[in-house]
Order: sequence, then C-alpha cells, then structure tokens
Amino acid sequence: DFQRALDDVAPKFGAKNQELKALYRNGFVPYGESFDLLMGNMERLVEQVRTSEKTPLMSVLLQGPVSSGKTAVAAKVAVESGFPFVRIISADDMIGYSEMSKCQEIHRVFLDSYKSPLSLIFIDDIERIIDYVAIGPRFSNVVLQTLLVLLKKVPPDQGRRLLVIGTTSCPHLLQDLGLVQAFGVTLSTSLLEEPLQISEVLRVAAHMTEHEAEGIARSISNPIGIKTLLMVAEMAKQGSPSGAVDVSVFLECLHTVGY
Amino acid sequence: DFQRALDDVAPKFGAKNQELKALYRNGFVPYGESFDLLMGNMERLVEQVRTSEKTPLMSVLLQGPVSSGKTAVAAKVAVESGFPFVRIISADDMIGYSEMSKCQEIHRVFLDSYKSPLSLIFIDDIERIIDYVAIGPRFSNVVLQTLLVLLKKVPPDQGRRLLVIGTTSCPHLLQDLGLVQAFGVTLSTSLLEEPLQISEVLRVAAHMTEHEAEGIARSISNPIGIKTLLMVAEMAKQGSPSGAVDVSVFLECLHTVGY
Amino acid sequence: DFQRALDDVAPKFGAKNQELKALYRNGFVPYGESFDLLMGNMERLVEQVRTSEKTPLMSVLLQGPVSSGKTAVAAKVAVESGFPFVRIISADDMIGYSEMSKCQEIHRVFLDSYKSPLSLIFIDDIERIIDYVAIGPRFSNVVLQTLLVLLKKVPPDQGRRLLVIGTTSCPHLLQDLGLVQAFGVTLSTSLLEEPLQISEVLRVAAHMTEHEAEGIARSISNPIGIKTLLMVAEMAKQGSPSGAVDVSVFLECLHTVGY
Amino acid sequence: DFQRALDDVAPKFGAKNQELKALYRNGFVPYGESFDLLMGNMERLVEQVRTSEKTPLMSVLLQGPVSSGKTAVAAKVAVESGFPFVRIISADDMIGYSEMSKCQEIHRVFLDSYKSPLSLIFIDDIERIIDYVAIGPRFSNVVLQTLLVLLKKVPPDQGRRLLVIGTTSCPHLLQDLGLVQAFGVTLSTSLLEEPLQISEVLRVAAHMTEHEAEGIARSISNPIGIKTLLMVAEMAKQGSPSGAVDVSVFLECLHTVGY
Amino acid sequence: DFQRALDDVAPKFGAKNQELKALYRNGFVPYGESFDLLMGNMERLVEQVRTSEKTPLMSVLLQGPVSSGKTAVAAKVAVESGFPFVRIISADDMIGYSEMSKCQEIHRVFLDSYKSPLSLIFIDDIERIIDYVAIGPRFSNVVLQTLLVLLKKVPPDQGRRLLVIGTTSCPHLLQDLGLVQAFGVTLSTSLLEEPLQISEVLRVAAHMTEHEAEGIARSISNPIGIKTLLMVAEMAKQGSPSGAVDVSVFLECLHTVGY
Amino acid sequence: DFQRALDDVAPKFGAKNQELKALYRNGFVPYGESFDLLMGNMERLVEQVRTSEKTPLMSVLLQGPVSSGKTAVAAKVAVESGFPFVRIISADDMIGYSEMSKCQEIHRVFLDSYKSPLSLIFIDDIERIIDYVAIGPRFSNVVLQTLLVLLKKVPPDQGRRLLVIGTTSCPHLLQDLGLVQAFGVTLSTSLLEEPLQISEVLRVAAHMTEHEAEGIARSISNPIGIKTLLMVAEMAKQGSPSGAVDVSVFLECLHTVGY
Ligand SMILES: Nc1ncnc2c1ncn2[C@@H]1O[C@H](COP(=O)(O)OP(=O)(O)OP(=O)(O)O)[C@@H](O)[C@H]1O
Ligand SMILES: Nc1ncnc2c1ncn2[C@@H]1O[C@H](COP(=O)(O)OP(=O)(O)OP(=O)(O)O)[C@@H](O)[C@H]1O
Ligand SMILES: Nc1ncnc2c1ncn2[C@@H]1O[C@H](COP(=O)(O)OP(=O)(O)OP(=O)(O)O)[C@@H](O)[C@H]1O
Ligand SMILES: Nc1ncnc2c1ncn2[C@@H]1O[C@H](COP(=O)(O)OP(=O)(O)OP(=O)(O)O)[C@@H](O)[C@H]1O
Ligand SMILES: Nc1ncnc2c1ncn2[C@@H]1O[C@H](COP(=O)(O)OP(=O)(O)OP(=O)(O)O)[C@@H](O)[C@H]1O
Ligand SMILES: Nc1ncnc2c1ncn2[C@@H]1O[C@H](COP(=O)(O)OP(=O)(O)OP(=O)(O)O)[C@@H](O)[C@H]1O
Ligand SMILES: [Mg+2]
Ligand SMILES: [Mg+2]
Ligand SMILES: [Mg+2]
Ligand SMILES: [Mg+2]
Ligand SMILES: [Mg+2]
Ligand SMILES: [Mg+2]
Repeated sequence: DFQRALDDVAPKFGAKNQELKALYRNGFVPYGESFDLLMGNMERLVEQVRTSEKTPLMSVLLQGPVSSGKTAVAAKVAVESGFPFVRIISADDMIGYSEMSKCQEIHRVFLDSYKSPLSLIFIDDIERIIDYVAIGPRFSNVVLQTLLVLLKKVPPDQGRRLLVIGTTSCPHLLQDLGLVQAFGVTLSTSLLEEPLQISEVLRVAAHMTEHEAEGIARSISNPIGIKTLLMVAEMAKQGSPSGAVDVSVFLECLHTVGY
Repeated sequence: DFQRALDDVAPKFGAKNQELKALYRNGFVPYGESFDLLMGNMERLVEQVRTSEKTPLMSVLLQGPVSSGKTAVAAKVAVESGFPFVRIISADDMIGYSEMSKCQEIHRVFLDSYKSPLSLIFIDDIERIIDYVAIGPRFSNVVLQTLLVLLKKVPPDQGRRLLVIGTTSCPHLLQDLGLVQAFGVTLSTSLLEEPLQISEVLRVAAHMTEHEAEGIARSISNPIGIKTLLMVAEMAKQGSPSGAVDVSVFLECLHTVGY
Repeated sequence: DFQRALDDVAPKFGAKNQELKALYRNGFVPYGESFDLLMGNMERLVEQVRTSEKTPLMSVLLQGPVSSGKTAVAAKVAVESGFPFVRIISADDMIGYSEMSKCQEIHRVFLDSYKSPLSLIFIDDIERIIDYVAIGPRFSNVVLQTLLVLLKKVPPDQGRRLLVIGTTSCPHLLQDLGLVQAFGVTLSTSLLEEPLQISEVLRVAAHMTEHEAEGIARSISNPIGIKTLLMVAEMAKQGSPSGAVDVSVFLECLHTVGY
Repeated sequence: DFQRALDDVAPKFGAKNQELKALYRNGFVPYGESFDLLMGNMERLVEQVRTSEKTPLMSVLLQGPVSSGKTAVAAKVAVESGFPFVRIISADDMIGYSEMSKCQEIHRVFLDSYKSPLSLIFIDDIERIIDYVAIGPRFSNVVLQTLLVLLKKVPPDQGRRLLVIGTTSCPHLLQDLGLVQAFGVTLSTSLLEEPLQISEVLRVAAHMTEHEAEGIARSISNPIGIKTLLMVAEMAKQGSPSGAVDVSVFLECLHTVGY
Repeated sequence: DFQRALDDVAPKFGAKNQELKALYRNGFVPYGESFDLLMGNMERLVEQVRTSEKTPLMSVLLQGPVSSGKTAVAAKVAVESGFPFVRIISADDMIGYSEMSKCQEIHRVFLDSYKSPLSLIFIDDIERIIDYVAIGPRFSNVVLQTLLVLLKKVPPDQGRRLLVIGTTSCPHLLQDLGLVQAFGVTLSTSLLEEPLQISEVLRVAAHMTEHEAEGIARSISNPIGIKTLLMVAEMAKQGSPSGAVDVSVFLECLHTVGY
Repeated sequence: DFQRALDDVAPKFGAKNQELKALYRNGFVPYGESFDLLMGNMERLVEQVRTSEKTPLMSVLLQGPVSSGKTAVAAKVAVESGFPFVRIISADDMIGYSEMSKCQEIHRVFLDSYKSPLSLIFIDDIERIIDYVAIGPRFSNVVLQTLLVLLKKVPPDQGRRLLVIGTTSCPHLLQDLGLVQAFGVTLSTSLLEEPLQISEVLRVAAHMTEHEAEGIARSISNPIGIKTLLMVAEMAKQGSPSGAVDVSVFLECLHTVGY
C-alpha cells in the first residue's frame, strides 16, 4: 500500500513542485560559506528522515531577518528532497478563512501526510499563519494550538516519516508562544554582510558584470537581505537606460526602499 | 488571452477612471519642486512595473499629513498609468460590511487583478480600511492580515504585473502593524510651507488674482495642507460678496476650521 | 430630476420639521452677543452650502457643556435652513439596534441625502450614537468608523450638496477618536455666565417678571446651562403657589438638581 | 383617548400596586426628620409632574447605602402617586435574558408609558439592571446606553408626562457611567444613626416594647440600615422564646450578620 | 395546595436526600466545640426559616479553607432540615452547559422552590458555579448576576419560605464580587488544629485505635483539613498491610499529598 | 453487571493499549534510583485504587521539565495497571474542536469511566488540553472548569473506582489555575543529571556500546531530558556512517537542537 499512497499523491506533487520553484524564481546563488553550512545542515536532516527508522517525525524552524531568503531556502530543500508528498502551508491560500477553517486546512495537510511513506510539510511565515500583529499583541490562539499539537504528533502508522520545515522572521515571538520549543531543530539564514557575497549575488542572479557588481558591493556598508538586494538591482536597472548600472543610481534606489 | 483579459476589464476601467478623477476635482497644481520629485518617483515605479520582466509585484506607500493631497496624487497616478486594470479599494464602498466581507471584497479585487497583464490597485486611507481607532487601540486584525498577505503575494501567473499604491496619514501606526515593511517602497507628500507654493495653488486652483494670492500666502505662517487651503479659499469667497478676497476674511475662515 | 428628488422627500420633511421644533419647545431666546455670533457662523455655513458650487460637502461639530443648548441650536438651524432634505440621526430612534443595524440606518440616511440637491443631516449627541462610556472606555467601533467615513465622503453625484451638523459634550473624546478632525468646522455653545443673559432667558422663556428674573440672576454665581436654568425655573414655580418665584425657593431647587 | 389609555392600563396597575406594596411588607415607619424631608422632596416631584405643563419628563435617582430603605421608599412613592401607569423594572424579572432582550423589555415599558397621560417607572437597583460587577469592572454597555437614552427622551406626544425613579447603592459608579448626570434630580436615603430613630423603628415595625427598643437602640453604636435592623430583630425574636428580646441576644444576632 | 406542592416534590426529595448523604459518605464526626458552635448556628437558622412568618428568605454563606468540611456540613444540614423541598446546585451537574443554560437551570431550581412551603437550596462551591479562575481573573458574569438577583429575591407567594446555603473557599473573591453582601449571614468552617480534634476524627471516621490516632495526632503540627486527614488515613492504611498504621507511614503519605 | 461493563469496554481497551505503548516506543529504561522511586509511588497509587473501598477517586499530577519522560511514564503505568477501562485524553485527538466540543468529549470519557469497576484516565499535557499560551496569557476557561469539576467528582455509583493521571511541564501555571490543588497527589519526573543515568539510557535504549555511552555521558555537563537524549543519539548515528558514534559528532548534534 506504500505504492498506492505514492500513486495518490503523485499528481499533486508535480503541481506543488512548480509552485515551490516559483518561490525562488529570481535564482538560487550559493553565495558563500555560511550559506553552504546552512544547506548542508538542511540536507542532513532530510537524509535522517529518509533513512532513520527511529525518526518518524523531525521538524526544523528556519529563522532569519526579513528578506534574508528563508522562503527560497525552504522551497529549494523541499523540491530537492524528492519526497513523494510535499505540501506548502501558506497564508495566501487561506485568506478570509475563519480560524476554524484554517485549523481544519492545516490538520488536513498533516492527516494527508500521514498516508505517505515520506512527507515534507513546509509552513511558510508562521507569524502570518497565526495572524500575528505586535499591537495588542494579537494572534489566533486556536491556529497556534493546532500547530503546537501537530508539531509534536508522531505519524500514527508504523514506518511513515514526516519532516516539517517552518520559517519565521520573529524568533523571539515564537519563543514566547512556545513554538520554537515545539520544533526539534532551529537553523538560521542571515543577511549578506561581505562584499564578496553581495557581488556574487549581483553577478549571478542580477546578471551584472563583475565590475558593476564589485563597485556596488563595496559601496554597501550595512548587512542587506538577498531579496532586497535583488529588488533594488532591478529598480536600478530600470533607472539605467544605458544598461550599465551606476553605483549612485543603485544607492538612490536603495534609499527609496528605506534601506 | 491577454487580449481577452483586456476586454474583460475595459468597460469597468472607464467607469473607474471617472471616479478616480473626482478625487482631484479641485484641480491638480504642480506647485513646486518637492511635488515634482514625488511625481517623478511615482512615475518611475509605474514605468518599472510596465516594462521590467522581473517586477511582477511592486507596492508603494504614500504617507503624509492629513490634507496634504495623498488621495489626489494617488488617483492622478492611477489615471495616468493607463493600465488596463485599475481599481480603488476605499472604505466608503464597504460601510457596514462585516470584517469577513471586507476581506473577501479586497481579496476579490486582487484576484481580478491577477487576470490582467498590467494592474494597479489603489488602497486609500489604510487606517480606515482596517477600522483603526487610537483609543484601545482597536483595528480589524483579519483585514490587516489580509493586506499583509496580499501585499507580498506575487501574481501567480507568469507575465502578469501588479502595482499597489496605498495612502496613510499614520505612518507610525502602519510601522507598528508591520504594514510599512510589507510595502516595497515608501514615498511622502508634504504640507505647503513656502509662500510661493501657496500663492501658486491659490492662483491656479482657487482662481485668485496674483495680488490676492500673494497677500494671503505671506500672511500664512505655518505649513498648511493643500486640501485645507482650497476649502478655506472657498469659504473666504463666500464671505466676500464683492468678489476680491480680503486677507483678514481669509484668516478668519482659517481660524474657523481650527487651523 | 431635481424636482422628482424634491417631491420624494417633501412629505417626510414636513414631519421632520415638527420633530425638530419639539427640540426647542421651551423657546429660543437670543440671550446675548456670544449667542448671536454662534448663530451667525452657523447661518454662514448654511449659506455656503446653498450657494457655493465648490462645496458639495460641509460639516460642522457643535460642541459645548451639558445643558448648554446644543441640541436646540442645531435643530433651529436645521429648521431655518429650508433645505428640502433634513434628517436627524438620534440615539433614541435606534434603541436596541445591533451595531450593524445602526450602521445601516446611518448609511441609509446619507445615501438618501445624496439624492436631494440640498441636504442637511443632524447627528445629535455623537457620544450616544457610538455607545460611549468612560469606564473601559467602551464604544462601538463599527459605528464610529461608519461616521468617520461618511463625514469625509463627498456626495457622488454632481451638484448635490450636503451639510452635516453634529453635537457633542465630549470634545476631547471626539478628538481622541479622530472625529473632530473629520469635521470641517468646529463651533461652540457656552454656559450662561452674565446676570443679563440669565435674566433675559428667565424673562422671555420662563415668563418671569423683570424683577423676579433679575433677583434670581444676581444670586447665581456660577455659569449655568440654559436647559438646567429653565428646568429649575419650572420647579421653582411649582414650589411657589402664590405665583411669584422667590429667590430662596429658586436656590433650593438649584441645589436639588445638584448644581 | 386619555380615557382609553387609562382603561388599558388600569388592570395591570392593580396588579403592580400589590407587587409594589410587597416591597415594604415589613412596614413603613416615619422614623424622623431626615426621613420626612426625603419623602417631602419625593412628593413635590410627583406633584410637579402631575401639574406642570412644562415638565413632560422628570427623573430622580434615589441613592443610599445598602439596606437603607431605598426600594421601600421608591415603592411607597410609586403606590401613593396614584398615577394611572406605574411599572417597576427589576432585575429579577429579567433573569437569563440576553442583553438585547433586556433592552427591548426596558424600551417596551417606556414606550407603553408614553401612551398614558401620567406615568411612573421605577427602576430598582440600577447596578443589577446593567449587570455590574466591580472586578473588571464589567457591565452591560447596551443596557447602560439604553438607559442613558431613555432617561433623556421626552415623551413624544403632547401632554403625556413621565416620572422615572431609579435606586442605587453605588452612586460613584453611576457617576462614572454618566448615569447620575442623566437623572434630573438626585436624593438620598441614609442609615439610622440616632437611638431615637432606631427605637422608633423597633417599636413600630418590630413590635417591641418601648423598653426593649430603647435598650437595644442605646447599645448600637454604629449607623445601621433599616432593613438590617428589622432582619436582626426577627432573628433575635427567634432566639428569645420567652418573647422579650434581650439586648445581648440582639447583639449576638447583629454579630452573626457581619455587622 | 400546600399538600399538593408537598406531593409534587416528595419523590424528588427522596432521591436528593440520598445524593446529599453521599457528600459525607466518610462519616460525620462531631470533633469538638468549634464544630458544635457552627452546627448550632446552622440549626438555628433552619429553625428561624421554619417558624418565623417574617423570614420568607434567609441565606447563609459557609466559608472555609479547602478540605475543611464545607460540603459535608451543608449537606448534613440540608438532610436534617427535613424541608419538603431540598435541592443542590452543583457544578458537576452543569458541565459543558452554556452560560445561559446554567442561568436557566439555576433559575428553574429557585422557581420550583417558590412552590413549596419550606425550601432549602444548597449551592456548593460557588467559585466553580461561576467558572472562576484567578488568572485574568475570569468568571461568568451572567451566572454571577443571576445569583446576585436570586439571593435577594423574596419568594413571591405569601407564606413560602426559602433557605439558601452556599459554600466557598474564596471568601475574599466573593466579597469583591458582591456575593458575600448578598448573603444574609456568613458562617465558617475551620481546619483541625488540636490533637484532640484530629485523634477524634481518626478514631471515629478512620476506625483507628485510640493509640494509633493519638500518636498520629501528636505528630501533626500544622492545621489540616478534615477531608485531607481522612484521605491520608486511607492511603496510610493501604501502606500498612499489617493493619496498624505507623506514624512514619502516615507522615510519608501526608508528604505525598503536598501537605 | 460488572461483567457486562467489562465486556463493553474490553475491545476498546485492547486498542487503547497499543496506542499507549506507542508513547514509549523508544524503550523504557529503569535508569536509576530516582526513577524507581517515582515508579514505586505510581504503582502504590494504582494499588490503592484497586483495593481500597474508601478510595473511589484518586488523581495524580505528574509534573516535570520538557522531555523528561512524563508521557512515557504515565503511559507505562496505564498499560501495567491492567484496569479494564483505560483512556487517554490528548490534544491531538481534539484538533479543531470548539471549546464546547472539547468539554463534551472530556466529559464523555469520564461518564464512560463511571460505568467500569476500575478505570484509569490519562490526561496528557494539560496545558495543551486547555489551549494555554503564555502571551496574554490565554487559555480555554470552559475546558479548565470542566477539568476542575471532573477532577473532584467522585464516581456516582457505589463501588466504581477511578484513577486520573495528568501530566504537565508548567506546574506553576497549573498552580495559578487551581489545577494542582484539584489533584490529590503530585509526583515529579526529572532530567538526567548523572553520567551513570545517561550512559545507561544510551546503552539500553540507543544500543550504544558501553564505551561510546560512557564517553558521551562524561561530556554532557548539564541535565538533559531523556527524550532529547534519545533524539540526539539518533541524529548522531545518522552522522556516523561508520557505526560508532563519536563524542564530537554527538556534541554537535546536541548543539543543533539548541541544547
Ligand atoms: N542563496 C539564496 N538563498 C535564498 N534566496 C536566494 C538565494 N539566491 C537567490 N535568492 C533569491 O532571493 C530571494 C529570497 O527571497 P525570499 O522570499 O526567500 O526571502 P524571505 O527571507 O523569505 O523574505 P520575507 O522575510 O519577505 O519572507 C528569492 O527571490 C530567491 O530567488
Ligand atoms: N498638486 C496637488 N496635489 C494634490 N492635491 C492637489 C494638488 N493640486 C490641487 N490639489 C487638490 O487638493 C486636494 C487634495 O485633497 P486630498 O483628498 O488628496 O488630500 P488628502 O491628503 O488625501 O486628505 P486626507 O488626509 O483628508 O485624506 C484635492 O481636492 C485636489 O484636487
Ligand atoms: N438661545 C437658546 N439656545 C439654546 N436653547 C435655548 C435657547 N433659548 C431657549 N432654549 C431652550 O433651552 C433648552 C436647551 O436644551 P438642549 O436640549 O438644547 O441642551 P443640550 O446642550 O442639547 O443638552 P444636553 O447636554 O443634555 O444634550 C431647550 O429647551 C430650548 O428650548
Ligand atoms: N421609613 C422606612 N423607609 C424604608 N424602609 C422602611 C421604613 N420603615 C420600614 N421599612 C422597612 O425596611 C425595609 C427596607 O428595605 P429595602 O429593601 O427598601 O432596603 P434597600 O435599601 O432597598 O436595600 P438593598 O440595598 O438591599 O436594596 C423594608 O422591609 C421596609 O418595609
Ligand atoms: N464534622 C465533620 N464535618 C465535615 N466533614 C466531616 C466531618 N466528619 C467527617 N467528615 C468527612 O470529612 C469530609 C469533608 O469533606 P468535604 O468535601 O465536606 O470538604 P470541603 O471543605 O467541601 O472540601 P473542598 O474544599 O474540596 O470542597 C467528608 O468526607 C465527610 O464525610
Ligand atoms: N525510564 C524512562 N522514562 C521515561 N521515558 C523513557 C524512559 N526510558 C526510555 N524512555 C523514552 O524516552 C522518551 C520520553 O519521552 P516523553 O514523550 O515521555 O517525554 P515528555 O516529558 O512527555 O516530553 P514532552 O515534555 O515533550 O511532553 C520516550 O520515547 C520513551 O520511550
Ligand atoms: Mg518569506
Ligand atoms: Mg485622502
Ligand atoms: Mg442635547
Ligand atoms: Mg433595594
Ligand atoms: Mg466542597
Ligand atoms: Mg509529553
């Protein structure tokens, strides 16, 4: 019946894969050592779930600053896992849902995962899933409780294995909510800090020349998120009809986005 | 099918255009340099969405003091974009809606926009959309969460592009709510500060003589919103049966409106 | 179709007029200069709405202490405007309504007003309309938001004009709620402070002799609301079977009402 | 149609009268000067409503410590008014009602009263009517708002007159809620302080001998509510099989009730 | 019709009596003077309700520390009253009820009691009835208000008499909620403090020998609730297969229950 | 009818037993003295319920740090009790339930237990059952109240006996909620502190050699939960393809899980 379970989920998997790849449509640049370390850790966990009989449930929280590439990393890992069941739980699929409907939807995804021999559930932007806002603060307790319970529930059937990947840019909040503790492992993405990292990203993902990329990289003094960097690069290109992006145009665009 | 999408939205667009123009029915005076800068920035963003393949989603928050012309500027930009799909999300179309109905309405506008190759959604007075009031403070969290999610959601279909323009006079509130961060870019309107700006507006939009306009402009010592200025000009005209508006009558009217 | 709109509202207007007059059934005494100033300002705003093409929407908040005659002044102005569409929004017509029903009712009055060439909406005692109570504090946010939106909404059809008059005895609250800012103009009623004002009111509205009125006026040392003054005059008359009201009887009655 | 209105309410009135009398089933002793003063004031207000054409609405709040006889005084005044329409609004007729049902019930009583030429509505224990509790504090805002509005609403039909009597033992709370201000007049009951008052009550209402009554009165050093006094007298009688109530037995009973 | 009322309630009474007796299934030991005093006071109140024509309503709040025997005392008094109508209002009969259903249930019991000439209602553990929890604090205000009203409502029909007994271990809370004041009388249970009291209870209710009982009593240095004492005695017996309970075993068991 | 009750529950019992055993699927190692003490105490309570006629209701709260083995201990005791009725109340069986449905479900389990001569109800992770979260704090009061009542309710039928075991890692919270007091007895699990305990667990449950186990045990300086220890052992094995787990690999894995 493993085969049948596989059959059941196969077509959906195809679809999901495409959706996941869209989450890193601006490329995926291995920009340096810290990044390789993170990817290595992620892959090791995937491996453990795939092979260890004693790990029916593993969960990893990917935390990091806004724009630091959390969603892209998680999506990439999900795609490359090759697990027969991969699902994303994302706030934009649940707009206008009541709290109870959200819980049911989330629960359904987990229940479905228990039917596949190897499953991966990717919960993107947990603070959005629980409708968090700092003023109050307010959040949906029933959705939170659902996550707290599901994150600790071992798949009931023998031999089924599940990896849960969550992302957040508010690790302190998730700590206070008891969510960090509900995850087995916590890993981090970080901002780009070194000129080499920045120029690498600009060159590979924004198709700049080495010269342009290095000039800009040298002029950026504070850490910057990879997502912001790529957006600003695009803005700067629009402001450079000649084609070559000038450092000053780039810095002006950086300013416009409030950096 | 781009053509069909265009056909679908064309008639509505006509209607919306008229409604948008009513938002600056008291004229649109290019009153000086700071204003030109703002308009230039806005137009550049419109251009980027129109032409860059890598910008399927751009969002700009237009912040500024009460009466500083936010709504008029956004409406003007929307009209001049010439985008085939233009919609305004405004609190007065949703009076008496439940929170959930508001979310559905807002969601529907975004879903519709994803069908057009080029779309612009103008969300006026975000604090009103989320039912904000300072005492408490209170606001609709479900509407807020809907905005937070939609502002980050890239149009799902390849090649569709969307520009979102929001306005607010409470940027600090929106910061605390995480809304400022959800916008890609933030731009500002400002009050009229210099006599030259004020007299220009009075002359062009309130049809005063240069002499009247300059006399009044000199007598105004604090920054004033362009909307307030035009309302007071109208009141002063009613109080001046002779036709020429006296400075003292103008100042009295200013006082009545609590300036 | 202006004519048809006029026909539609004419009968209701008659009825409303009578109801409005009942709001100053104890007379309307022009008791002095400050009062004349207020009435002059009110009339000027009515005039502006009637004649200025550029003022499709005007709103005035009449603030003043409890019992200072706010309701009577607003009702008088409404009656004397002669506008074809005049409506009062008052808490006692909405007892036991749900918050949503209140919003719908208020919205309906505004929608109706947009069909008449000249309209006046009188919202009495705004703190009661929004169910305000100081402990908490508590109030109906959905009703508040409805007012905030409607007070800024220009009648959609060309050439229709609307004047909104609101009254309140809690201006600071309304400031905090953002309601004062939503009104275009703010005017004030005040307590009676000078013996001449008091004796004038007692003479004309309470039918006292000049002698009685002046005796009493001299003995009142603190400012007093015109409504309180007239109620106490009535109590004192009941306590004076002889007909002539004695100062000491009057003061005793003043004491009873907690003055 | 005054006659018809009278006919309509007559039978109910009979019933109500009996119910009201039960509220002072332990007698009604005019125990001294302060009490006479209070009753005089109450009667004068009744008279004013009965006779003054200019007083279509009068309202009096009877405040006083727990057990001081508020309910009995109000009931007595209601019975003796002889008004054709007399109703009591009491929390124990609305147990288990939803907030909205309470509002409707209260509203209905007022609407009915507007049909009678002379009406009296007695609202007992206002803090109970609004479901007040000090912890929180909590109370029903919709019931409160209903009272605030109805207490200021003049009977709409010409010539109908209404007297509202409310009782409370939390005047400070009612002040904060804006209820005291909504009443026209405020009067007070007080505890029994002087031996003469106490012995009078014991003698007349508890049927003690002058000797017993005076002995006990002398031994009571703190002010005591008339209701408490009569309850303790009854307890003491049960503890005195001989018939004569001993001072020490009385004091012991006083102690038991936490005095 | 007194007879018929009696007939109506008679069968239920039988049933209730058995349920009440189960509340002191571990015996009822008159362990000393303070206890006798309490029972005397309780019985006197029962007597007063039975015989005094002027006491149609009496209510007593039995307060005391957790485990001090409140429920047992109230149940014993209820059984021994011999009143034809005896009911217990207890939280475990209303598990999962909505707040409104609880109110209706409680109200129904009181309404039923008004039909019997002599009634006793026993409300056990009032903090549980109102769903109290210290964090917040939270409680059901509608249930609280229902109790506040019913505790002061005299049975409407002439000659019917009602005694209400309530128990609580949070007298300060009930004070703040206004509940203590709603009861006519307050009495207290206390912990066992003296060796003589403790050994008496162990001997009579736990069937220990005088020797065992005294040994244990001497070794208990802090006051202890009678319920706790009996539970620990039972645990200690299980831990003493020989039959005779050793002091050290007893103390160990005491420790286990967190004493 | 004891026999029939037994028949009724027998098949369910089988099923439940399997589910309970899954809660300690990673083995159950008697790792030392403190553990033996705890198990001894648990077994004694089971014995008391089985044999003592005077203990129809016993409840024990098992508290201890996260990962210290609470669930496993309780499940083991439940399985070994051999009671004919054993049920687990666990949050993951009630995901997406309304508060009321949770109460009904919990109530149903208790009602069912009253039908069996010997019953054991295991309530795992009480903070999850009541939807607790520290921010606010928030929790479901109706579920809490249901537990408070059921934990004190003696099985109504003569001779039926019930043992309730609850687990929690927030004893202070449960204290504040009054839940600790509602349990008769409180016992504790603890973290592994001594190298001997740790190596024993690694050897027996993680199948390490004595050498490996001791090396690792010596290198762990802070107390660690048995659940964490076993998870890390599994991770370390995956990272040691050679088979023998290196101390440094183990420490790295420890670090990854945030220890
Ligand atoms: N090595 C990389 N890691 C992550 N993202 C990369 C990398 N290389 C290129 N990218 C691109 O950078 C962008 C990262 O954006 P992403 O949405 O993942 O950020 P995020 O941290 O999830 O942002 P947010 O805080 O808004 O959720 C993507 O467009 C992705 O294609
Ligand atoms: N250059 C200009 N920019 C903006 N508004 C202008 C300009 N010239 C003239 N106007 C007029 O000034 C008015 C600006 O009002 P607008 O409603 O845009 O202000 P606002 O900042 O949105 O006010 P609010 O804070 O009340 O929302 C409009 O009537 C518009 O016709
Ligand atoms: N010049 C005047 N202005 C206002 N009211 C007058 C004047 N002359 C006489 N009156 C009478 O005084 C009374 C004013 O009462 P009104 O209800 O308007 O006061 P208010 O300020 O609205 O009181 P509240 O604070 O209770 O709402 C009315 O009865 C009105 O007939
Ligand atoms: N002069 C009197 N005034 C008031 N009550 C009197 C008087 N003489 C005798 N009584 C008796 O005293 C009792 C007063 O109780 P009442 O219920 O009116 O007090 P209360 O102040 O309303 O108490 P609570 O604060 O509990 O509502 C009644 O039983 C009444 O019959
Ligand atoms: N004199 C006595 N008074 C009260 N209880 C007694 C007495 N003698 C023996 N008992 C026994 O002591 C126990 C008292 O427990 P009870 O449930 O009444 O305590 P409680 O104070 O209501 O506890 P809780 O605070 O948990 O509600 C009962 O089992 C009862 O049979
Ligand atoms: N002596 C033991 N006691 C408890 N658990 C043991 C023991 N020996 C081995 N184990 C294993 O240790 C693990 C204990 O995990 P368990 O879920 O009981 O911890 P927990 O304290 O309930 O954790 P949480 O705080 O997450 O609820 C189980 O996998 C169990 O098989
Ligand atoms: Mg992301
Ligand atoms: Mg605007
Ligand atoms: Mg008024
Ligand atoms: Mg009373
Ligand atoms: Mg009890
Ligand atoms: Mg556990």
